[in-house]
Amino acid sequence: MTGQTPSSTSAPPLSHDEVGRALAVLGMTASSELAAFSRLAADAALAPVLGQRLELSGLAGTALRRLERIGARVRELGGDLETVMAPFSGVLVDFDGRTVPSTWWERLLKAYVGYGIADDFSRIAAGALDPVTREIVLEVLTDDGHAQLVVDSLAAAGEQDPALASRLALWGRRLVGEALGVVQRLLADHAEMRDLLGAAIPSADGAEAQSRLFATLTAEHTRRMDRLGLTA
Amino acid sequence: MTGQTPSSTSAPPLSHDEVGRALAVLGMTASSELAAFSRLAADAALAPVLGQRLELSGLAGTALRRLERIGARVRELGGDLETVMAPFSGVLVDFDGRTVPSTWWERLLKAYVGYGIADDFSRIAAGALDPVTREIVLEVLTDDGHAQLVVDSLAAAGEQDPALASRLALWGRRLVGEALGVVQRLLADHAEMRDLLGAAIPSADGAEAQSRLFATLTAEHTRRMDRLGLTA
Repeated sequence: MTGQTPSSTSAPPLSHDEVGRALAVLGMTASSELAAFSRLAADAALAPVLGQRLELSGLAGTALRRLERIGARVRELGGDLETVMAPFSGVLVDFDGRTVPSTWWERLLKAYVGYGIADDFSRIAAGALDPVTREIVLEVLTDDGHAQLVVDSLAAAGEQDPALASRLALWGRRLVGEALGVVQRLLADHAEMRDLLGAAIPSADGAEAQSRLFATLTAEHTRRMDRLGLTA
Repeated sequence: MTGQTPSSTSAPPLSHDEVGRALAVLGMTASSELAAFSRLAADAALAPVLGQRLELSGLAGTALRRLERIGARVRELGGDLETVMAPFSGVLVDFDGRTVPSTWWERLLKAYVGYGIADDFSRIAAGALDPVTREIVLEVLTDDGHAQLVVDSLAAAGEQDPALASRLALWGRRLVGEALGVVQRLLADHAEMRDLLGAAIPSADGAEAQSRLFATLTAEHTRRMDRLGLTA
């Protein structure tokens, strides 16, 4: 992580619409990184062993550096980080309130599955952006090894305890249902997100773009549950 | 913050004792930075406004970068971060368990006063270290603007509400009492900390060094309470 941001001066100037789209996706991605930071820092504070606490704190730091990277691009585009994040902060609070994990395993699965859907959505939306911003969003959303850590420990736990595996499978369905509901409400409430989606997913109309979006999000979710050995 | 660490190759090699002392102070300082990180991240998650949440998250990131800086020096000296931190992690858990703040103001004061004492202790102990490690510890302990932020808001709140000011003065005395107790137990349990202190504070014997240490810690505490307009 160099902290270096590509300069926009070498790229052609963006139109007003392009800047608006870029700021929307950056705001959404920043909100998800801030949520990841808070969650990882809280996980770190709960970790039973110092080594785990240091590891999780380091991952929280990665989320924060990504947030700073996004903030730099927002400023480069003449925006303000807090302003572009504001529309999305309520959305995640809502999701968190509806999906309070009751065990450490549920907490891990929520991190992987719930935020996985948010990241997929940002990744798809990034397809509609100028190349510089798209590159930054995709780089920020690259997996940092955290997913593998979660996959390994969840898969091992589920294999040893079939009752746990079936409870987690149920929890996974709860999570995906709530997460897709959040995406649906986001699209219903924000015309600019619908426009963005239309540009990111080539399709006949808005309805088709949305159904293709939900098909992709569901397929990615199923793939993640498969990696865990859990029934989607 | 460059992340650059001074190379030890240009400095004369350290004796076994010097390395031991350096690792003890680095472990203590790292524990206090990790605690600061967790506390600031938790404060960020509780912050009522997005702007504050971003600001506190940024300060948590600073604590984490300092922890990484210390970790780099520990490795340079042939040590392992987790191992050198281990003796101190129980100490801070104990302090936190004894001083659970019941309001946001008590939480702020605890951050400033409680960890202020830990930092003063590390700063004094750093006097006994090789120049390279001493420089790193002192730099890491430099105030990052967080203290000023806390001072401004606590001083303003105390001025407006004399009842709050007198409750906080009481809480400050509780905090300093518990913190000095922690230092006392640390010295009683760890011979290497007593040696370190003897080297850092020139004095006739261990008892004199300890009484000078407590005098300094108390004086610094009084100075901090004064800045807040609170009775020490």
